[in-house]
Order: sequence, then C-alpha cells, then structure tokens
Amino acid sequence: MNLHPFLIAIEVGGTIAFAMSGLIEATRKRMDIVGVFSVAFVSAFGGGTVRDILLDRRPFFWIQNQEYLWLVLAMVLTTPLWLKTLRHKLGGHVMEFADACGLGLFAISGATIALAADMPVLVAMMMGVVTAIFGGVSRDVLCNEVPKVYSDHRPYAMCALFGCGVFIVLDAIGLPLPISTLSGIAAATGTRLIAVALDIRLPAWPKPGE
Amino acid sequence: MNLHPFLIAIEVGGTIAFAMSGLIEATRKRMDIVGVFSVAFVSAFGGGTVRDILLDRRPFFWIQNQEYLWLVLAMVLTTPLWLKTLRHKLGGHVMEFADACGLGLFAISGATIALAADMPVLVAMMMGVVTAIFGGVSRDVLCNEVPKVYSDHRPYAMCALFGCGVFIVLDAIGLPLPISTLSGIAAATGTRLIAVALDIRLPAWPKPGE
Amino acid sequence: MNLHPFLIAIEVGGTIAFAMSGLIEATRKRMDIVGVFSVAFVSAFGGGTVRDILLDRRPFFWIQNQEYLWLVLAMVLTTPLWLKTLRHKLGGHVMEFADACGLGLFAISGATIALAADMPVLVAMMMGVVTAIFGGVSRDVLCNEVPKVYSDHRPYAMCALFGCGVFIVLDAIGLPLPISTLSGIAAATGTRLIAVALDIRLPAWPKPGE
Repeated sequence: MNLHPFLIAIEVGGTIAFAMSGLIEATRKRMDIVGVFSVAFVSAFGGGTVRDILLDRRPFFWIQNQEYLWLVLAMVLTTPLWLKTLRHKLGGHVMEFADACGLGLFAISGATIALAADMPVLVAMMMGVVTAIFGGVSRDVLCNEVPKVYSDHRPYAMCALFGCGVFIVLDAIGLPLPISTLSGIAAATGTRLIAVALDIRLPAWPKPGE
Repeated sequence: MNLHPFLIAIEVGGTIAFAMSGLIEATRKRMDIVGVFSVAFVSAFGGGTVRDILLDRRPFFWIQNQEYLWLVLAMVLTTPLWLKTLRHKLGGHVMEFADACGLGLFAISGATIALAADMPVLVAMMMGVVTAIFGGVSRDVLCNEVPKVYSDHRPYAMCALFGCGVFIVLDAIGLPLPISTLSGIAAATGTRLIAVALDIRLPAWPKPGE
Repeated sequence: MNLHPFLIAIEVGGTIAFAMSGLIEATRKRMDIVGVFSVAFVSAFGGGTVRDILLDRRPFFWIQNQEYLWLVLAMVLTTPLWLKTLRHKLGGHVMEFADACGLGLFAISGATIALAADMPVLVAMMMGVVTAIFGGVSRDVLCNEVPKVYSDHRPYAMCALFGCGVFIVLDAIGLPLPISTLSGIAAATGTRLIAVALDIRLPAWPKPGE
C-alpha cells in the first residue's frame, strides 16, 4: 500500500504504541533485553503477520518496511532513558491515545488487504479484527497471561469490528477509498476513545446469573 | 472435498462440539463476547487451519465454507439461551459423543488431505492427529492452561492416531475410499467412546517410579 | 542443504538436545506419552518450522528428513530406559553441551536460509535467532510457562545473534561458505559455553532502579 503522509503518521504512532505495550508488559515480567525486544516485536507486528500468513501474503509488512524494525530496536535499546519518565508523567493518556490510533489503522488496513485478496465480507471483517488484536493476544500468551483483550471487558475488538463495518459499508456504496478508509479508522479509534473516556465495560458472556 | 451428506452431518456435529468446548472454557474464564467467540472459533477451526498452514493449502476450510463461521457466531450470540440448560440437563454425554465424532472426522480428513498432498505415511498420520487435537491445544493456550489433551491422561490423540492408521492401511490395500474413510472414522470415534465409557487412563510418561 | 558429515553430526546432536529439553519439561508436567512426544517434537522442530512459515518455504525440514521424526519418536518410546540414568549421571553437562551445539547450528542454518531467500541482513539475523530459540519458546508456551529464554537471564539468543553476525560479516567479506559457516557456529556455540561455564547473567531490562 502507498499511504498518504497523514496515514503514515498514524501508522508510526500505532506501531510505537503497540510495541510500547509489549515492552512495558515484558519489563513487568522482569525479562532480559532479548525478551523485551521479542515481546515488543510480537506486539507490534504479530497481528499483521498472522493476517499475512492466513492470506498467504509475502513479504511481510516489517520485512518490506525495515525502518519499523529499527524503530522497535531503538525503542528497546533506549528504554532505560524514558521508561520511568513515561510511567510517572505521560503514562496512561498518551498511551491510550496512540493505542486507539493503532487499533483503527491496523483494523482498516487488515480489512482493506483482505478485500483486495477477494475475501468475502465476513472474513474481511475478521481479518481486520485479527490484525488489530493479535499482537496483543500474542504478547499476553508469551507473558503467560490470559489475553487481556478477551478478559478485561473493555471494548477493543468491538471497536475494530465497528470501524471495519463502517469502512466496508462506505466502500460498498461507492465512496472513494480515502474517505471510506479514513471514516473506518475514525469510527474504530473514536469509539475506542469514547469507551475509554466513559469507562464502558462489556459484561462477561453470558452475564453472571443468566 | 465433496462429502457425502452423512459425512456432512458428522462434520457439522464435530464442529459444533469443538466450538462448544471452546465456548464453555471461555465462559468459565469469564471472558467477554469477543473472547468467547475467539476461543470458540479457534477451538473449532484451529486444527484444520494449522494443518493447512503446514501443508500450504488455501483457501482455508472456514473461508471456503462460510456457513460454519455463521454457525459459530450464532452459537455464541445465543449462548445465554441454552448454556445453563446444557450444563444441567444434556451435559457431559451429548458433548462427549459429538466431540468423539469430531475427533474421528477431523483426524481422517487431515490424513486424507495430507496423503492427497503426497505426504509420506508418518506425516499423514501426524497431520491427522494435528487436525484433531490442535483446536483444543490452541483453546487451552489462549485460556492460559496446560493443554488438556497432553495432561488429562485420557486417550484422545491416541484414538485419532489409531483411526488414521486403520484408514491408511485399508487405503493402501486398495479398499474403495468411502469404506476406508468410514472405517477410519469409526475406529477413532469408537475407541474414544470406549475409552470414555470405561474411564481408561494413560499413565504419565514415563510412569512414576520408573 | 547438502551438509558435510561433520555438520550432520552437529545437527543430530542439536536436534537430540532440543528434543530432550522438551521431553524433560513435559515429563516434569506429568504429561502422557502424547504430550511428551508433542512437546519434544515442537522443541526440536518448532524453530525451523516457524522460520519456514515466515519465509514461505516448503517442504519442512522434518518432512524432507523423516529420519529425524523417527529419532524423536524412538527417544520418546525409550524414555523409561534412560531418563533416570540421564538425570543422575550425565545430567547437566552433556545436555548443556549438546544444546549449545544445537543453538549454533540452528542459528547459522536459519541465517543461511534467509540470506538464500534474499532477505536483508537484519531479517537474516532475526531468522537465525528465531530458528535457534523458537522451539524452546513454543515448548514453554505449551507447558504454560513464561519462555525461559526471555526470563532466565542467561545469554542464549544473544549468542545466536553474535554467531549470525560473525557468519554474515565473514560471508560478506568473501570468505568461502564452509569457513564462514563454521566460524559462525563456533562463535554462537562457543560464547554460549563460555557464558554457561562462567555463569554469566544478563540483567533485567531496564535494570532494577534504573
């Protein structure tokens, strides 16, 4: 994909946010530098890689755009310089915002690529969600946790699904690709930010007592 | 594969049983609806998907036959309506039976597909077992458990292996495909049902004290 | 790859060591024979299989060289005969040595194959490390543990990385392949043996207090 500079900025932000989530989780588990890099890498690129394996696409995103590899490597190497500051000062809000941007962009990129590979709509929506969440799922499996996206009851995959739906509907009714793409990203990222701001929770399924 | 209506019925039953096992496990972990769907999906289609990745086959079973996706989705959406009833009334027996059917069918379908891809016999048997058990292994990894198939000491993969062996021998001596296929399925499903009925256990390997 | 008899000997030793590590871990978890075989298999062949999936190479190493499958099967079947003796007598030292040989050989074979697939240098080094460590990572995920290679703080992936670096530099300056290959293997295996002998530890990253 040739991306507009604006989309590249979102993508860089999303990749950084996803890598950061892995990096922070790995440092919590007191891993060494190899573990921190591996978990950060898998968090950032796991979703897109699984999507590409499922769709049988090569080369992978991170092989075609090696600067992302170097970016994650640089983040890991410089961790001692900024991790404490980040935890104390910037902390939650910036991370949540960047992560929501990553969610939207990865979801729509996954759906776009699946549609381009002639997948049916249901599969394209699944691929969007897989691209958005599978990095986090792999991160939690490597850290020996139940995946947070399945168990913390905060809407995340739902927002990705909604964004993919918006994108696919707008695309199907014939809007130009930039508009449907941006609307889908905005829908996913926006609902995620609203869900975080209002602290919305999904119930366990089925609800206790049901 | 073009399947006989009888085989399709077994396949639907097996897929439902496998999805159900994931669904029940995920509700035990108090996941939200996204988690329940993901784990049910991986339980039902994980084995066949890993087999297809290993054999480099596309499109996947669940992309070619989307009605299975809708089936699992419908099961997850209607969970509140039937889960309690299932636990109290039908419970173990129906589930065990359906699961044993799934075991037999998935094992033989895996072996058939591997043989059709010119794999040697040992690999075909492995692919049969992988197809039968990997959904459950992935389910347990996502739920942060040691895979039950490796640790609950009840014969499961062994039954899949036996069924694949029966199928491959009958096929090699020239019996028509429907007969060798059905015999293989019956061998896997039958030994599983017998093992469950008699509560047969495999020892830890090597046996304690050895 | 057509390997020199000397390399084949190292490869067999490495495969045995990797399978053994899985076998021992699975017996600790009191798995049955299916679990022990699965975990031993994944430990021995997981790294190379993930590399081949990432590079889209078929057939897999263990399908092309089935004698390795039989070897692992024979190891698992004969476990009761030698496991106790191994634990009491040979124990750590032989295992550490064989494992270090496997580390070196798997790392350089991964890097060689990635370079042959026209991957850039950074990716080739990653593929070398993935080939060397991913069997162990998969083993620990199946056994429901945080991967040891990320958390036991003993240099392992670092040694693989160093060996791949030596190999790639010597190859780039035009040394004949046997020399660069053997030097890379020796560098990875040698630094690992030194790290084990001197009990060198990597700190958590970032270091506590940083």
